This record gives sequence, C-alpha cells and structure tokens, in this order.
Amino acid sequence: MAEARILSVLKDWQPALPLAVAYSGGADSTALLWACAQRFPGQVVAFHINHGLQAAATDFEAHCQQQCAAWGIPLHIAKVAAHHAPGQSPEDAARIARYKALEQLAQATIAQYAIKTIVLAQHADDQVETVVLALSRGAGVAGLAGMRPAWERNGLRWERPYLATGGAQMGATQIRADLRALGIAWVEDPTNADQDLTRNRIRAQVSPALAQAFPQFASTLARSAANAALAAELLDELAHMDFQATGSPPAIKVLQALSVARMGNVLRYWLRTVYGQTPTAAQLAQLVQQLQHCTTRGHQIHLKVGRGTVERRGGVIDWYNPSVLV
Amino acid sequence: MAEARILSVLKDWQPALPLAVAYSGGADSTALLWACAQRFPGQVVAFHINHGLQAAATDFEAHCQQQCAAWGIPLHIAKVAAHHAPGQSPEDAARIARYKALEQLAQATIAQYAIKTIVLAQHADDQVETVVLALSRGAGVAGLAGMRPAWERNGLRWERPYLATGGAQMGATQIRADLRALGIAWVEDPTNADQDLTRNRIRAQVSPALAQAFPQFASTLARSAANAALAAELLDELAHMDFQATGSPPAIKVLQALSVARMGNVLRYWLRTVYGQTPTAAQLAQLVQQLQHCTTRGHQIHLKVGRGTVERRGGVIDWYNPSVLV
Repeated sequence: MAEARILSVLKDWQPALPLAVAYSGGADSTALLWACAQRFPGQVVAFHINHGLQAAATDFEAHCQQQCAAWGIPLHIAKVAAHHAPGQSPEDAARIARYKALEQLAQATIAQYAIKTIVLAQHADDQVETVVLALSRGAGVAGLAGMRPAWERNGLRWERPYLATGGAQMGATQIRADLRALGIAWVEDPTNADQDLTRNRIRAQVSPALAQAFPQFASTLARSAANAALAAELLDELAHMDFQATGSPPAIKVLQALSVARMGNVLRYWLRTVYGQTPTAAQLAQLVQQLQHCTTRGHQIHLKVGRGTVERRGGVIDWYNPSVLV
Repeated sequence: MAEARILSVLKDWQPALPLAVAYSGGADSTALLWACAQRFPGQVVAFHINHGLQAAATDFEAHCQQQCAAWGIPLHIAKVAAHHAPGQSPEDAARIARYKALEQLAQATIAQYAIKTIVLAQHADDQVETVVLALSRGAGVAGLAGMRPAWERNGLRWERPYLATGGAQMGATQIRADLRALGIAWVEDPTNADQDLTRNRIRAQVSPALAQAFPQFASTLARSAANAALAAELLDELAHMDFQATGSPPAIKVLQALSVARMGNVLRYWLRTVYGQTPTAAQLAQLVQQLQHCTTRGHQIHLKVGRGTVERRGGVIDWYNPSVLV
C-alpha cells in the first residue's frame, strides 16, 4: 500500500536516463530516491549538498552515506557555503547555491554517468507554500506560477515529478507514514520547526488551515499556478513582439500607440532584458503616465526606475545609471 | 480616530456624483454609507436589496429604513428572489441578481437623482477570500484577479473604493470597533456564522491564519490580484489580435503558426466570445495537440469541448452543439 502510493505517482513519468536525485536525507527526497531506484534500477545516482549551515549538517551527510551504501546507490557529495547578498534572503541564496552545486556534480561525474536529468522532490504542498509566499509579496503572474515542473539548462534536464501531487498522496504526514511502513529511515531538518523562517510559518499555520477548508487545495492551486505560468509565458511573448516594434531604446511614438497595459508590459520587458532592472509597480505606472502626456517636443521625462533613471532623448526613452556615467 | 480612519480611505477618491451606496445594513456597507454621506453631503442615496432568503431579511430592511431616516439619506429598496441555475452556486446567483437589481434601481430613480456611480463596500479582506476561492477552484489569471476595483456598464459606473484597504484599517474587527466608537448601529448577517458556505469557511479558518503569518497579507494579495487582472487583460488583447489573423471560424494553418500557449489562448477566446463555451484545461490541451498533428488532408478532428463538439471542416475548425442541429 505504502509502496504502491509512493511509486504510483511516477508511473507514467519517462525521464531521460541516467538520473540523479537531489537527496537531502529528508522524508521527501528519501521517498523520491527510493522510488526512482525501484523504477530505474542501475540508472540512479544520489547527489547530496552539505550546506554546513546547521550543526546537524554532518549528521545528515553521514545518514545519506549510510542509506545509499545500504541501497547500493552511488552517492556524490558537494559542500557549499552560501553567503546571501544584501537584499537576498538566506533561503534564496542557499537554493541558488544548491542548484549550482548539483549542476557541478553532474559535470564532475560526466565521465562516470553522463547524467541526463536531475530530479527534485518538491511536491504540491511545497507549491502551495511557494504561491502563498508570492501572494505575501504582491507578486505578478511569473511569481504566482510558483515552481516549474521541468526545465532545461546547459543541456541538463531538471524535473519535479511530484509537483502536482500533494495532500493525501504526497503530503508531509502521508510520506512519513509510508516511509515508516516500508522501514525506510530519514532525517528531520531541524529548521522545519523554526517559526522565524517565512516558509515554515506558512507550513505550520497557513497550509493546515487551507487543507482543512479545502481538502483538494494543493492540486487545485497547482492548476492555478500552471495557468499563471502560461500567462507569464504569453505576456513575455507579447512583450517580445511589441519590443520588435518599439526598437531599443524604445521609440515614444510606437509606445504611445499601445494600450496602457501593453505599454507597461513592453517597458518592463525592455528594462529587464536589456538592463536587468525591475521597476516597482508605482515607477512603471508613472512612466506610462509620463509617456501618455509626452506630446510636445519640449516635454521632459526624468524618472527614477530600478537602480537608475529613465530619460527622454528626442524620439526615444532610455535608462541609465548615473553612478556609472560619472 | 475611528472617524478619521473610516474617512481617510476615501480621501483621494473622486467618484462621479451623485452616487448610490449598496447598503445591506452590515458593518462594511454601513461604514461606507456613513463615510460617503460625510464626504459628499446631499449627493448620496442608499439602495437596499432584500433577498428574502433569510427570515432576518425583513429585520435588515427595517433597520436600513430606520438608519437612513435618522441620517436623512434617501433609501430605495428592491426585492429579489434569486433562483440558482443548475451548476451555479446560490451565492453566485444572489450576487448576479443583486447587481442587476441595483442597476434597475438606478434606472427607476433616474428622473429623481440621475445616479452616476454605484458604490460597493468590499474591502481587501473580501478580496483575500475571493482569490483564495479562485485558487481552491484552480482558476486562471482572470479568476486570480479577484474583484474589479471599478468598471462601467450601460453608462453606469461601479466602484469599490475600499478594495485595496484591509487588515488594521478596514478589517472586520476594526470596522466594527470604529462603528461602535461612533455610536453607529449595524446588523450582523447570520450567514456569516454558517460554516457550510465556502466563503465563510475561508473567513473563519484561512484568513485568520494568513493574517497571523503575514500582517500585510490583504494588501500584498490585492497587488497580486491587480497584476493578475492586468495579465488577463493582456491575454485578451493578444487573443483578440490573433483572432483577427485566424478569422472566424479559425483557419488551421494560421493557428499552427502560433506557439502552443498562444494557440490555446486564441482558441479559448474564440470559444468564449463566439459560442459562450469554456473548455476545460484538458479539452484545450487535447485540441491544441490535435491541431499540431493536423498536417494531412485526411486528418479528422472531433473533440468534445464545453457543451458541444469541435470538428475540422476543410481548412478551418468549428464548434457546434449536436443537440441543436438534430
């Protein structure tokens, strides 16, 4: 029963092999590693990232070594020390460092395995946390899209086969019960109990309330997140198209022919793709308004946007960072 | 203090006058009616809709009459009996009937007041409920957009001036405390305590958990909802543009030149605007897949979509309802 449940989710999943499971030693990745090893025997490797952030990190690593030895699954370990930049959360920094280290492990072992796919254990309950977190930050549709189920980078495929499954099948309680029934050991991350971290606050307070009010919430939210991802993709496609028409730097007359919403969309795209700037909603609204009123030759535009300024220069607007131009 | 708080939200709001407040007698619309009467003396009318659904409806109406008489605000009442269609929730049916009755009241009193704006009392906490409800149904960005802050229909403007304000300023507890401090009476809707209605389940269980985890949740979510509304608008604009190119019924060759996401977007738009049909995500995905594979003259398409069927007819696809064609 427990075995069937953990395996059934991967039933129709056909990843490119061989694959590496990102194995932390926690319940979710333990279930995933075990399930992958059952489905693709001899084609599975475990990658463990030691963050060295917690005193328990050495114990996690030792546990993973022991478990993989018992299962006969090759294990490779990388140590990372993530320092978070100003304005970046420690969790974001740790995540980015972790994914980079996983990619490096795949490259470092290329002669041995030629790993095609890296598999991550996040499930629908994690997606609920990600989307609630996005809502708590007032995110746009790209944020409301949550985590991607799959993507490709540098010829390596990344997949989250459990992402649409949660609650009774893949929820925290069920996974632990199933692992216990199968006699499989895992380690509990002590930060899971730390209420100071936003994600854990959602896990402890918000997710249980949502699951109680709507037993299917994890899977309905996953559908909304997928819809938001599609919308984000289309918005980008529309912006790309409009950007072809405005040129770079964008021509004011072409911008003015667009609807307000579409002008905002292409301006955001231009600032992000050309200058790596993310305007606030207020900055963007102001810029759009200025552009609408820019009907005379003498009309000046000079607005703070991101870490610099947008200015009118004749028939176009452009962004620059004053500190760089000194 | 209480007075300042209720009024401050409307400080910069400039509605077209005169206006009618949709006044149920509950705390939110009582605060709104009072605030509007303070800000626009002599320009405010109250509209009350009696749903006759609850035994208490007559008491509500009597309370509203008494309160408006005391304030010297003209009150007009309409009785509606909302019968919900199959597949429609009683709440949705009641809401649609209510808005229609409000519009009719504006028309019926046109010689007396020529009402320009109807004002609704929903605030950011209501928006939280609406968006959580949308997530619990797996909605797309149009659903995640929640309630609109303002719109126009049949020459009448509708506004929700409190929509972006919630929590400490406009939350349920604060509004009631402020009304009490001002000595203003209101009636509690008995359905507010009914856990069987989904919205009340959110209000009782989910919203408190969200507010506890994120004190600013109502206003950050309002920002995400506004972003989703913009995205929905842009998706419609893109679909409209692509629909010009595909023609109606849509040409298969033109559809095939679009990206998968864009093809789905224009197909959804076509089915909604021309036939009033809403395909499920699975139906739409299947239709897109069929269209991608439709490369030979003999390739048939015949798919159930909404309450009918999409079929290939030479170079185009079209939708029809078989029961109508019998």
